[in-house]
Amino acid sequence: MAFSPLVDQLLDALRVLPGVGPKTAQRMAMQVLERDREGGAQLARILARAVEEVGYCARCRTLTEQTFCELCESPRRDDQLLCIVESPADMLAIEEAGGYRGRYFVLHGHLSPLDGIGPDDLGLDDLDTLIKDAAIDEVILATNPTVEGEATAHYLAQQLKPRGIRLSRLAYGVPMGGELEYVDGGTLSRAFMGRQPFNE
Amino acid sequence: MAFSPLVDQLLDALRVLPGVGPKTAQRMAMQVLERDREGGAQLARILARAVEEVGYCARCRTLTEQTFCELCESPRRDDQLLCIVESPADMLAIEEAGGYRGRYFVLHGHLSPLDGIGPDDLGLDDLDTLIKDAAIDEVILATNPTVEGEATAHYLAQQLKPRGIRLSRLAYGVPMGGELEYVDGGTLSRAFMGRQPFNE
Repeated sequence: MAFSPLVDQLLDALRVLPGVGPKTAQRMAMQVLERDREGGAQLARILARAVEEVGYCARCRTLTEQTFCELCESPRRDDQLLCIVESPADMLAIEEAGGYRGRYFVLHGHLSPLDGIGPDDLGLDDLDTLIKDAAIDEVILATNPTVEGEATAHYLAQQLKPRGIRLSRLAYGVPMGGELEYVDGGTLSRAFMGRQPFNE
Repeated sequence: MAFSPLVDQLLDALRVLPGVGPKTAQRMAMQVLERDREGGAQLARILARAVEEVGYCARCRTLTEQTFCELCESPRRDDQLLCIVESPADMLAIEEAGGYRGRYFVLHGHLSPLDGIGPDDLGLDDLDTLIKDAAIDEVILATNPTVEGEATAHYLAQQLKPRGIRLSRLAYGVPMGGELEYVDGGTLSRAFMGRQPFNE
Protein backbone atom coordinates (compact mmCIF):
# COMPACT_ATOMS: atom_id res chain seq x y z
CA MET A 1 0.00 0.00 0.00
CA ALA A 2 1.13 3.51 -0.68
CA PHE A 3 -0.42 6.94 -1.01
CA SER A 4 -2.80 7.69 -3.89
CA PRO A 5 -1.23 7.74 -7.38
CA LEU A 6 -1.10 11.54 -7.57
CA VAL A 7 0.46 11.88 -4.10
CA ASP A 8 3.02 9.22 -5.08
CA GLN A 9 3.82 11.17 -8.24
CA LEU A 10 4.33 14.26 -6.08
CA LEU A 11 6.74 12.33 -3.83
CA ASP A 12 8.74 11.29 -6.91
CA ALA A 13 8.70 14.77 -8.42
CA LEU A 14 10.01 16.34 -5.18
CA ARG A 15 13.11 14.15 -5.41
CA VAL A 16 14.54 16.35 -8.20
CA LEU A 17 15.38 18.77 -5.39
CA PRO A 18 18.88 18.22 -3.97
CA GLY A 19 19.07 16.42 -0.62
CA VAL A 20 15.46 15.23 -0.77
CA GLY A 21 15.06 11.50 -0.06
CA PRO A 22 11.85 9.49 0.37
CA LYS A 23 11.19 10.59 3.98
CA THR A 24 11.83 14.27 3.31
CA ALA A 25 9.66 14.14 0.18
CA GLN A 26 6.84 12.68 2.28
CA ARG A 27 7.24 15.37 4.93
CA MET A 28 7.20 18.06 2.22
CA ALA A 29 4.13 16.62 0.48
CA MET A 30 2.25 16.36 3.79
CA GLN A 31 3.18 19.94 4.72
CA VAL A 32 1.87 21.23 1.40
CA LEU A 33 -1.26 19.04 1.25
CA GLU A 34 -2.23 19.10 4.91
CA ARG A 35 -1.17 22.52 6.06
CA ASP A 36 -0.32 24.94 3.25
CA ARG A 37 -2.10 24.40 -0.06
CA GLU A 38 -1.88 28.09 -0.96
CA GLY A 39 1.89 28.03 -0.40
CA GLY A 40 2.11 24.89 -2.54
CA ALA A 41 0.06 26.45 -5.34
CA GLN A 42 2.25 29.56 -5.19
CA LEU A 43 5.42 27.43 -5.37
CA ALA A 44 4.02 25.53 -8.37
CA ARG A 45 3.18 28.79 -10.20
CA ILE A 46 6.53 30.46 -9.55
CA LEU A 47 8.55 27.33 -10.29
CA ALA A 48 6.72 26.89 -13.61
CA ARG A 49 7.40 30.54 -14.50
CA ALA A 50 11.04 30.37 -13.40
CA VAL A 51 12.00 27.27 -15.40
CA GLU A 52 10.23 28.82 -18.40
CA GLU A 53 11.33 32.46 -18.20
CA VAL A 54 14.68 32.60 -16.40
CA GLY A 55 17.49 32.62 -18.94
CA TYR A 56 21.03 33.97 -19.11
CA CYS A 57 21.99 37.64 -19.11
CA ALA A 58 23.06 38.53 -22.67
CA ARG A 59 26.24 40.07 -21.33
CA CYS A 60 27.45 38.23 -18.21
CA ARG A 61 25.37 35.03 -18.54
CA THR A 62 24.09 35.09 -14.96
CA LEU A 63 20.52 33.90 -14.38
CA THR A 64 17.90 36.53 -15.16
CA GLU A 65 14.46 36.84 -16.74
CA GLN A 66 15.51 40.15 -18.36
CA THR A 67 17.78 40.55 -21.38
CA PHE A 68 20.46 42.08 -19.16
CA CYS A 69 20.83 41.50 -15.42
CA GLU A 70 20.62 44.30 -12.87
CA LEU A 71 24.37 44.34 -12.35
CA CYS A 72 25.17 44.62 -16.07
CA GLU A 73 22.62 47.46 -16.33
CA SER A 74 24.21 49.34 -13.44
CA PRO A 75 26.29 52.35 -14.55
CA ARG A 76 28.13 52.35 -11.22
CA ARG A 77 30.36 49.35 -11.86
CA ASP A 78 33.94 49.43 -13.10
CA ASP A 79 33.97 48.31 -16.75
CA GLN A 80 37.71 47.72 -16.70
CA LEU A 81 37.51 44.83 -14.24
CA LEU A 82 36.00 41.45 -15.17
CA CYS A 83 35.60 38.58 -12.72
CA ILE A 84 35.00 35.11 -14.19
CA VAL A 85 33.08 32.72 -11.92
CA GLU A 86 31.68 29.22 -12.31
CA SER A 87 28.13 29.89 -11.11
CA PRO A 88 25.57 32.60 -10.29
CA ALA A 89 25.84 31.48 -6.65
CA ASP A 90 29.60 32.27 -6.69
CA MET A 91 28.79 35.70 -8.12
CA LEU A 92 26.27 36.30 -5.33
CA ALA A 93 28.80 35.19 -2.69
CA ILE A 94 31.37 37.69 -4.01
CA GLU A 95 28.76 40.46 -4.08
CA GLU A 96 27.69 39.67 -0.54
CA ALA A 97 31.32 39.76 0.61
CA GLY A 98 31.42 43.29 -0.80
CA GLY A 99 34.44 45.21 -2.02
CA TYR A 100 34.47 44.12 -5.67
CA ARG A 101 33.08 46.81 -7.97
CA GLY A 102 33.77 45.38 -11.42
CA ARG A 103 31.76 43.27 -13.84
CA TYR A 104 31.24 39.50 -14.00
CA PHE A 105 31.12 36.63 -16.45
CA VAL A 106 29.44 33.35 -15.46
CA LEU A 107 30.69 30.10 -17.03
CA HIS A 108 27.88 27.88 -15.65
CA GLY A 109 30.32 25.09 -14.90
CA HIS A 110 33.96 24.21 -15.50
CA LEU A 111 35.86 22.33 -18.17
CA SER A 112 35.27 18.63 -17.67
CA PRO A 113 36.24 16.52 -20.69
CA LEU A 114 34.96 13.33 -19.01
CA ASP A 115 31.47 14.85 -18.69
CA GLY A 116 31.69 16.22 -22.22
CA ILE A 117 31.86 19.84 -21.04
CA GLY A 118 34.17 21.75 -23.37
CA PRO A 119 34.89 25.44 -24.05
CA ASP A 120 31.70 25.84 -26.13
CA ASP A 121 29.53 24.89 -23.15
CA LEU A 122 31.05 27.62 -21.01
CA GLY A 123 30.05 30.46 -23.34
CA LEU A 124 33.61 31.36 -24.26
CA ASP A 125 32.42 32.89 -27.55
CA ASP A 126 30.32 35.33 -25.51
CA LEU A 127 33.35 36.00 -23.33
CA ASP A 128 35.41 36.79 -26.45
CA THR A 129 32.80 39.25 -27.68
CA LEU A 130 32.55 40.85 -24.26
CA ILE A 131 36.29 41.31 -23.96
CA LYS A 132 36.63 42.70 -27.48
CA ASP A 133 33.81 45.20 -27.04
CA ALA A 134 34.75 46.49 -23.61
CA ALA A 135 38.01 48.13 -22.62
CA ILE A 136 38.91 45.52 -20.04
CA ASP A 137 42.08 46.07 -18.11
CA GLU A 138 42.15 43.05 -15.79
CA VAL A 139 40.43 39.67 -15.73
CA ILE A 140 40.14 37.94 -12.34
CA LEU A 141 39.92 34.18 -12.75
CA ALA A 142 37.65 33.29 -9.81
CA THR A 143 36.87 29.67 -10.69
CA ASN A 144 36.78 27.31 -7.72
CA PRO A 145 40.05 26.19 -6.09
CA THR A 146 39.39 22.60 -7.23
CA VAL A 147 41.17 20.49 -9.84
CA GLU A 148 38.54 21.33 -12.46
CA GLY A 149 38.41 25.00 -11.47
CA GLU A 150 42.20 25.23 -11.72
CA ALA A 151 42.23 23.56 -15.12
CA THR A 152 39.53 25.93 -16.33
CA ALA A 153 41.50 28.95 -15.05
CA HIS A 154 44.60 27.71 -16.85
CA TYR A 155 42.67 27.21 -20.10
CA LEU A 156 41.14 30.69 -19.82
CA ALA A 157 44.56 32.18 -19.12
CA GLN A 158 45.95 30.57 -22.28
CA GLN A 159 43.10 32.00 -24.32
CA LEU A 160 43.29 35.49 -22.86
CA LYS A 161 47.06 35.97 -22.66
CA PRO A 162 47.54 36.85 -26.36
CA ARG A 163 45.17 39.80 -25.89
CA GLY A 164 47.55 41.49 -23.50
CA ILE A 165 45.00 41.66 -20.68
CA ARG A 166 46.22 41.51 -17.10
CA LEU A 167 45.15 38.21 -15.52
CA SER A 168 44.84 37.41 -11.83
CA ARG A 169 43.62 34.60 -9.64
CA LEU A 170 42.10 34.80 -6.15
CA ALA A 171 44.68 34.43 -3.36
CA TYR A 172 45.05 31.00 -1.77
CA GLY A 173 45.63 30.87 1.95
CA VAL A 174 44.24 30.13 5.38
CA PRO A 175 40.61 31.20 5.79
CA MET A 176 39.93 34.13 8.14
CA GLY A 177 38.84 33.23 11.65
CA GLY A 178 39.92 29.62 11.39
CA GLU A 179 42.50 27.82 13.50
CA LEU A 180 45.68 26.62 11.78
CA GLU A 181 45.28 23.28 13.55
CA TYR A 182 42.21 22.52 11.46
CA VAL A 183 43.43 23.84 8.10
CA ASP A 184 44.25 21.09 5.57
CA GLY A 185 47.85 20.56 4.51
CA GLY A 186 47.37 21.66 0.91
CA THR A 187 45.93 25.00 1.97
CA LEU A 188 48.66 25.49 4.57
CA SER A 189 51.50 24.92 2.14
CA ARG A 190 49.86 27.28 -0.40
CA ALA A 191 49.60 29.87 2.40
CA PHE A 192 53.33 29.45 3.09
CA MET A 193 54.26 29.77 -0.57
CA GLY A 194 52.12 32.88 -0.91
CA ARG A 195 53.26 34.56 2.30
CA GLN A 196 53.25 38.36 2.28
CA PRO A 197 55.61 40.91 3.81
CA PHE A 198 54.28 41.87 7.23
CA ASN A 199 53.68 45.61 7.51
CA GLU A 200 52.90 46.87 10.95
CA MET B 1 22.61 42.72 -4.71
CA ALA B 2 20.57 39.57 -5.01
CA PHE B 3 19.41 37.26 -7.76
CA SER B 4 16.91 38.50 -10.34
CA PRO B 5 13.36 39.23 -9.03
CA LEU B 6 11.89 35.98 -10.36
CA VAL B 7 14.73 33.86 -8.92
CA ASP B 8 14.29 35.67 -5.58
CA GLN B 9 10.56 34.88 -5.68
CA LEU B 10 11.43 31.24 -6.30
CA LEU B 11 13.77 31.26 -3.27
CA ASP B 12 10.92 32.65 -1.13
CA ALA B 13 8.36 30.19 -2.53
CA LEU B 14 10.61 27.19 -1.80
CA ARG B 15 10.61 28.15 1.89
CA VAL B 16 7.05 26.82 2.28
CA LEU B 17 8.70 23.37 2.26
CA PRO B 18 9.59 22.17 5.75
CA GLY B 19 13.26 22.39 6.71
CA VAL B 20 14.15 24.68 3.81
CA GLY B 21 16.10 27.77 4.88
CA PRO B 22 17.73 30.43 2.68
CA LYS B 23 20.81 28.36 1.79
CA THR B 24 18.84 25.20 0.96
CA ALA B 25 16.36 27.22 -1.10
CA GLN B 26 19.29 28.64 -3.08
CA ARG B 27 20.76 25.18 -3.64
CA MET B 28 17.36 23.88 -4.78
CA ALA B 29 16.76 26.82 -7.13
CA MET B 30 20.24 26.42 -8.65
CA GLN B 31 19.73 22.68 -9.11
CA VAL B 32 16.46 23.26 -10.94
CA LEU B 33 17.57 26.26 -13.02
CA GLU B 34 21.14 25.17 -13.79
CA ARG B 35 20.87 21.43 -14.09
CA ASP B 36 17.31 20.09 -14.29
CA ARG B 37 14.74 22.40 -15.85
CA GLU B 38 12.64 19.48 -17.06
CA GLY B 39 12.51 18.04 -13.53
CA GLY B 40 11.55 21.47 -12.22
CA ALA B 41 8.78 21.86 -14.80
CA GLN B 42 7.51 18.38 -13.93
CA LEU B 43 7.51 19.23 -10.20
CA ALA B 44 5.60 22.46 -10.90
CA ARG B 45 2.97 20.61 -12.95
CA ILE B 46 2.43 17.80 -10.44
CA LEU B 47 2.46 20.11 -7.42
CA ALA B 48 -0.17 22.34 -9.08
CA ARG B 49 -2.33 19.30 -9.85
CA ALA B 50 -1.88 17.79 -6.38
CA VAL B 51 -2.84 20.92 -4.39
CA GLU B 52 -5.84 21.29 -6.71
CA GLU B 53 -7.05 17.71 -7.03
CA VAL B 54 -6.03 15.79 -3.92
CA GLY B 55 -8.85 15.80 -1.40
CA TYR B 56 -10.08 13.53 1.37
CA CYS B 57 -11.50 10.05 0.89
CA ALA B 58 -15.29 10.29 1.41
CA ARG B 59 -15.13 7.39 3.84
CA CYS B 60 -11.85 7.39 5.78
CA ARG B 61 -10.67 10.96 5.01
CA THR B 62 -7.16 9.96 3.94
CA LEU B 63 -5.58 11.95 1.10
CA THR B 64 -6.75 10.85 -2.34
CA GLU B 65 -7.72 12.36 -5.68
CA GLN B 66 -10.53 9.77 -6.03
CA THR B 67 -13.86 9.80 -4.17
CA PHE B 68 -12.79 6.74 -2.20
CA CYS B 69 -9.22 5.71 -1.49
CA GLU B 70 -7.76 2.40 -2.64
CA LEU B 71 -7.96 0.90 0.82
CA CYS B 72 -11.63 1.81 1.32
CA GLU B 73 -12.39 0.33 -2.11
CA SER B 74 -10.65 -2.93 -1.24
CA PRO B 75 -13.05 -5.79 -0.48
CA ARG B 76 -10.31 -7.66 1.37
CA ARG B 77 -10.26 -5.56 4.53
CA ASP B 78 -12.07 -6.38 7.77
CA ASP B 79 -15.07 -4.04 8.09
CA GLN B 80 -15.47 -4.80 11.77
CA LEU B 81 -12.17 -3.17 12.75
CA LEU B 82 -11.61 0.58 12.57
CA CYS B 83 -8.31 2.27 13.38
CA ILE B 84 -8.38 6.02 14.06
CA VAL B 85 -5.13 7.87 13.27
CA GLU B 86 -4.04 11.49 13.27
CA SER B 87 -2.54 11.66 9.78
CA PRO B 88 -2.25 9.88 6.40
CA ALA B 89 1.44 9.37 7.21
CA ASP B 90 0.48 7.44 10.39
CA MET B 91 -1.86 5.29 8.30
CA LEU B 92 0.94 4.55 5.85
CA ALA B 93 3.33 3.67 8.69
CA ILE B 94 0.81 1.14 10.09
CA GLU B 95 0.24 -0.34 6.63
CA GLU B 96 3.99 -0.64 6.08
CA ALA B 97 4.38 -2.39 9.43
CA GLY B 98 1.87 -4.95 8.17
CA GLY B 99 -0.47 -7.09 10.23
CA TYR B 100 -3.48 -4.80 10.53
CA ARG B 101 -6.28 -5.79 8.14
CA GLY B 102 -9.13 -3.47 9.17
CA ARG B 103 -10.25 -0.05 8.01
CA TYR B 104 -9.03 3.43 8.93
CA PHE B 105 -10.29 6.87 9.79
CA VAL B 106 -7.97 9.89 9.52
CA LEU B 107 -8.52 12.88 11.85
CA HIS B 108 -6.01 15.20 10.13
CA GLY B 109 -4.80 16.50 13.46
CA HIS B 110 -5.69 16.25 17.12
CA LEU B 111 -7.84 18.26 19.50
CA SER B 112 -6.02 21.45 20.37
CA PRO B 113 -8.25 24.11 21.93
CA LEU B 114 -5.40 26.63 22.00
CA ASP B 115 -5.02 26.37 18.21
CA GLY B 116 -8.80 26.45 17.79
CA ILE B 117 -8.95 22.82 16.62
CA GLY B 118 -12.18 21.30 17.95
CA PRO B 119 -14.17 18.15 17.22
CA ASP B 120 -15.67 19.65 14.04
CA ASP B 121 -12.22 20.06 12.48
CA LEU B 122 -11.43 16.40 12.96
CA GLY B 123 -14.38 15.17 10.88
CA LEU B 124 -16.14 13.53 13.81
CA ASP B 125 -19.49 13.88 12.01
CA ASP B 126 -18.09 11.69 9.23
CA LEU B 127 -16.83 9.29 11.87
CA ASP B 128 -20.33 9.10 13.36
CA THR B 129 -21.86 8.31 9.98
CA LEU B 130 -19.19 5.73 9.28
CA ILE B 131 -19.72 3.96 12.61
CA LYS B 132 -23.51 3.98 12.25
CA ASP B 133 -23.46 2.60 8.71
CA ALA B 134 -20.91 -0.14 9.24
CA ALA B 135 -21.13 -3.01 11.67
CA ILE B 136 -17.99 -2.05 13.57
CA ASP B 137 -16.96 -4.30 16.39
CA GLU B 138 -13.80 -2.61 17.65
CA VAL B 139 -12.30 0.85 17.32
CA ILE B 140 -8.53 1.15 17.83
CA LEU B 141 -7.60 4.63 19.01
CA ALA B 142 -4.17 5.04 17.38
CA THR B 143 -3.61 8.74 17.97
CA ASN B 144 -0.05 9.69 18.88
CA PRO B 145 1.27 8.93 22.40
CA THR B 146 1.57 12.69 23.08
CA VAL B 147 -0.43 14.91 25.43
CA GLU B 148 -2.69 16.05 22.58
CA GLY B 149 -3.01 12.56 21.13
CA GLU B 150 -3.99 11.18 24.54
CA ALA B 151 -6.57 13.93 25.08
CA THR B 152 -8.02 13.22 21.63
CA ALA B 153 -8.20 9.47 22.37
CA HIS B 154 -10.00 10.19 25.65
CA TYR B 155 -12.47 12.49 23.92
CA LEU B 156 -13.15 9.91 21.21
CA ALA B 157 -13.60 7.20 23.85
CA GLN B 158 -16.22 9.34 25.64
CA GLN B 159 -18.09 9.83 22.38
CA LEU B 160 -17.97 6.20 21.29
CA LYS B 161 -18.61 4.45 24.62
CA PRO B 162 -22.42 4.95 24.61
CA ARG B 163 -22.58 3.02 21.32
CA GLY B 164 -21.34 -0.14 22.97
CA ILE B 165 -18.37 -0.50 20.63
CA ARG B 166 -15.22 -2.13 21.94
CA LEU B 167 -12.43 0.46 22.26
CA SER B 168 -8.71 -0.15 22.40
CA ARG B 169 -5.52 1.87 22.43
CA LEU B 170 -2.10 0.86 21.06
CA ALA B 171 0.13 -0.75 23.69
CA TYR B 172 2.71 1.46 25.38
CA GLY B 173 6.07 -0.04 26.17
CA VAL B 174 9.73 -0.26 25.27
CA PRO B 175 10.40 -0.10 21.52
CA MET B 176 11.68 -3.30 19.87
CA GLY B 177 15.42 -3.50 19.31
CA GLY B 178 16.23 -0.68 21.71
CA GLU B 179 18.33 -0.84 24.86
CA LEU B 180 16.60 -0.20 28.19
CA GLU B 181 19.46 2.08 29.16
CA TYR B 182 18.34 4.59 26.52
CA VAL B 183 14.58 4.37 27.03
CA ASP B 184 13.03 7.42 28.74
CA GLY B 185 11.59 7.08 32.23
CA GLY B 186 7.98 7.71 31.24
CA THR B 187 8.06 4.90 28.69
CA LEU B 188 9.83 2.54 31.11
CA SER B 189 7.25 3.04 33.86
CA ARG B 190 4.40 2.53 31.36
CA ALA B 191 6.13 -0.67 30.23
CA PHE B 192 6.26 -1.85 33.87
CA MET B 193 2.60 -1.02 34.47
CA GLY B 194 1.59 -2.80 31.29
CA ARG B 195 3.77 -5.88 31.83
CA GLN B 196 2.41 -9.11 30.36
CA PRO B 197 2.48 -12.70 31.65
CA PHE B 198 5.54 -14.42 30.18
CA ASN B 199 4.61 -17.59 28.27
CA GLU B 200 7.50 -19.72 27.17
